[in-house]
Amino acid sequence: MRIHIQNAPEDPLFAITPRQWEEAARRAGEGEAGHDLSIGDRAEEFAAAIAAAEAVIAPPGALSSLFPVAAPRLRLIFCTTAGVDGLAPFSRLPPAAVLVCNRGIHGAKAGEFAIMAILMLAAQMPTLIAAQSCGRWEPRYTQTLAGRRLCVVGLGTLGGAAAARAAAFGMEVTGVSRSGTSPGITACRAVIPADDLDAALPEAEFLLLACPLTPLTRRMIDRRRLASLPQGAGVVNIGRGAVLDEDALADLLAAGHLGGAVLDVFDHEPLPPDHRLWRTPNLVVTPHISADDPTTYNPRTLDRFFAGLAALRRGDPVPNAVDFVRGY
Amino acid sequence: MRIHIQNAPEDPLFAITPRQWEEAARRAGEGEAGHDLSIGDRAEEFAAAIAAAEAVIAPPGALSSLFPVAAPRLRLIFCTTAGVDGLAPFSRLPPAAVLVCNRGIHGAKAGEFAIMAILMLAAQMPTLIAAQSCGRWEPRYTQTLAGRRLCVVGLGTLGGAAAARAAAFGMEVTGVSRSGTSPGITACRAVIPADDLDAALPEAEFLLLACPLTPLTRRMIDRRRLASLPQGAGVVNIGRGAVLDEDALADLLAAGHLGGAVLDVFDHEPLPPDHRLWRTPNLVVTPHISADDPTTYNPRTLDRFFAGLAALRRGDPVPNAVDFVRGY
Repeated sequence: MRIHIQNAPEDPLFAITPRQWEEAARRAGEGEAGHDLSIGDRAEEFAAAIAAAEAVIAPPGALSSLFPVAAPRLRLIFCTTAGVDGLAPFSRLPPAAVLVCNRGIHGAKAGEFAIMAILMLAAQMPTLIAAQSCGRWEPRYTQTLAGRRLCVVGLGTLGGAAAARAAAFGMEVTGVSRSGTSPGITACRAVIPADDLDAALPEAEFLLLACPLTPLTRRMIDRRRLASLPQGAGVVNIGRGAVLDEDALADLLAAGHLGGAVLDVFDHEPLPPDHRLWRTPNLVVTPHISADDPTTYNPRTLDRFFAGLAALRRGDPVPNAVDFVRGY
Repeated sequence: MRIHIQNAPEDPLFAITPRQWEEAARRAGEGEAGHDLSIGDRAEEFAAAIAAAEAVIAPPGALSSLFPVAAPRLRLIFCTTAGVDGLAPFSRLPPAAVLVCNRGIHGAKAGEFAIMAILMLAAQMPTLIAAQSCGRWEPRYTQTLAGRRLCVVGLGTLGGAAAARAAAFGMEVTGVSRSGTSPGITACRAVIPADDLDAALPEAEFLLLACPLTPLTRRMIDRRRLASLPQGAGVVNIGRGAVLDEDALADLLAAGHLGGAVLDVFDHEPLPPDHRLWRTPNLVVTPHISADDPTTYNPRTLDRFFAGLAALRRGDPVPNAVDFVRGY
């Protein structure tokens, strides 16, 4: 099979190497399958490979900038990120190819980041960090997490891992999913549909956003909903920045209605140097690092690619094929 | 029984109230026992009560400043903190009274603080926080905790809780105790005696200090031992500041040998405003808040006091009686 891997030159830490490919092929039992592989990170390399390629592996930035292009033999497009919102409109892609997203590999790291962020907010670490920067010894004694209420919006890989970690600390977790169901997730005391979100927010001491960006979730957490959280609540966003009204969040933090927030994702990334969020009180800004473990990312990505390839070959449904209507 | 509670006027959040006393007495089945209680926070109130008092409940600062004093009827001195290093030399106390420390109530909060600190160091949060303060988007992608090596020095309440949380994240925990044993603690892959510490440090990606301050532990983690940690290691101290050579830690952080540290306890508290630790790179300073949950502290303290009283009355050994030779 002719397979092309397009790496992102600006992201060398996550560039897939020939050696990683060979090891993954061996793990998949395809070490001797005679695949014809090309790897590149420049537009010319993509252009040279795409006319003959049957499968392509690439991050969304490369896919959105390099398509549309004639790719008559292409059957599988494997996007190396879990979120494919950056690829919309999907009409730019060849209609005969299946688009697969890299959902499911981010759970371990995201669960750890989520519980770290919740522990930091519960301990009022943003306030303590600000006091440290001024050399001020100002103790804040705080409660443990047991029995406290967390609302997790989005029960996919990220939200499911976050809910499991929170439950292990004794938190009472309410999950929110599009449908109100959450197959395979047992950590939530209750799971409600997104339509019932308004009822859950006034009860939530902590709100964790872990949903994909779709037409339904864009600005779902608007000013009114943020204001409906109880006084002192903490907010964490590890999903997509545009799910949240960033300006409203900053206003409510500055006014003291919200107790603190940890944002890892933003409307515009990188966050511009003069953006108010860098300096909003009680806000911790991290640069979209909550879910990516570089020591395991590429090996797991390639394992999933080979699983997708095998399904396609058998004529089975390809795992994590993107539904263009839902948007994930 | 005549009982005196001496509160610290500088610490009103942790002042024991008559209502907390009544509720605890009820829980202990001593609501109708007719105890003669006095509560105060001034030296005159202590002086007026101590000659007749049979038991006293007080923080170490009050005890060390108010003793020695004639207390002919005193049988039980209940120190409201776990650490009693501030009370040495113990010869200031009436020899006929049992000194009891408040060991065991700090576990839940300390375990949460410890794993938060380890997660923050693993995620390079000190570096990300410094980048935020300059408005710089500088991603650092980091590994999860699973399989990584943590050395916990001190396997009492704090260290045991920290080890349990770390094991739940898949860390490989080596515990260090005075004797090399750790009754009741199952989270450690290995437990070694303090004499073997030198062998454990070069293996430790994270070092967590949770031991009491005693003549044996003072400056136990000196410059040589800190330097023997591997490049990039993280250090957390939730025990006592003087266990560690703070200046050596700051030097090794500034030089980049250590990757980061979280210190909650210090040689001199409050940490003076001009101390270099406030501004040491990759160091998070918190103001001795890692183990105290104000919503549960006083009720649990009083429950332990009543348990001690009951043991004394029965003629049994009093739980958490301080061994003046060991120092805890």
